Amino acid sequence: MEWLDKVRWADNGLVPAIAQDAATHRVLMVAWMNREALTRTFETGEAHYWSRSRARLWHKGEESGHVQKVKALRLDCDEDVVLLEVEQVGGIACHTGRESCFFRRLDNGDWVSTDPVVKDPDEIYRK
Amino acid sequence: MEWLDKVRWADNGLVPAIAQDAATHRVLMVAWMNREALTRTFETGEAHYWSRSRARLWHKGEESGHVQKVKALRLDCDEDVVLLEVEQVGGIACHTGRESCFFRRLDNGDWVSTDPVVKDPDEIYRK
Repeated sequence: MEWLDKVRWADNGLVPAIAQDAATHRVLMVAWMNREALTRTFETGEAHYWSRSRARLWHKGEESGHVQKVKALRLDCDEDVVLLEVEQVGGIACHTGRESCFFRRLDNGDWVSTDPVVKDPDEIYRK
Repeated sequence: MEWLDKVRWADNGLVPAIAQDAATHRVLMVAWMNREALTRTFETGEAHYWSRSRARLWHKGEESGHVQKVKALRLDCDEDVVLLEVEQVGGIACHTGRESCFFRRLDNGDWVSTDPVVKDPDEIYRK
């Protein structure tokens, strides 16, 4: 697939991938993709990433059910960052049970949580 | 500044930084920050990045005038990605003269430009 070759994979074979909610436009999370993750994302229509900590392909939502249905894939001008416009199933992208991983805002010299926990992580991951 | 120490800088001293338009919510660009870039961003209220290609601090808009006025700084759950909510002066973040660097969408197996050039880059950078 020629479009895959247009992505400028870093020396470690990865590029950053941003997931943005297609409806609310909230930036949900940033993870990493290798060729296989992007290929699987394209083929299945659901976001797949490369988990650096677990060193394996990661189908987002595989445990939580909070999969991301991809509405559009975008590439930046330098061709080294991918943007996914997604429908976030469950309205929760973050493993802390919040909508977005960017739930902290710098306020008076400290990072302050601005977002509620939608669902207790213990409930999300106990199954 | 303690909040700076809470950021998990990678071994190369950098973290990815996403700029999102605070009004339109469009994801404008992704660049990299080191401690100095984030410090300068905080102190001046305008986005500063670390240019990896030029290996120097980069005040976004220093040539083009298209500076980014920071409305909020956010940090993700892993504390290794920064999100900037910005007012994009000139409405152009991309060096190609487009609003966003993510002007390409995957369409029928190819990356297709979906965004107009707002201003010719030759006009932006000739001064």
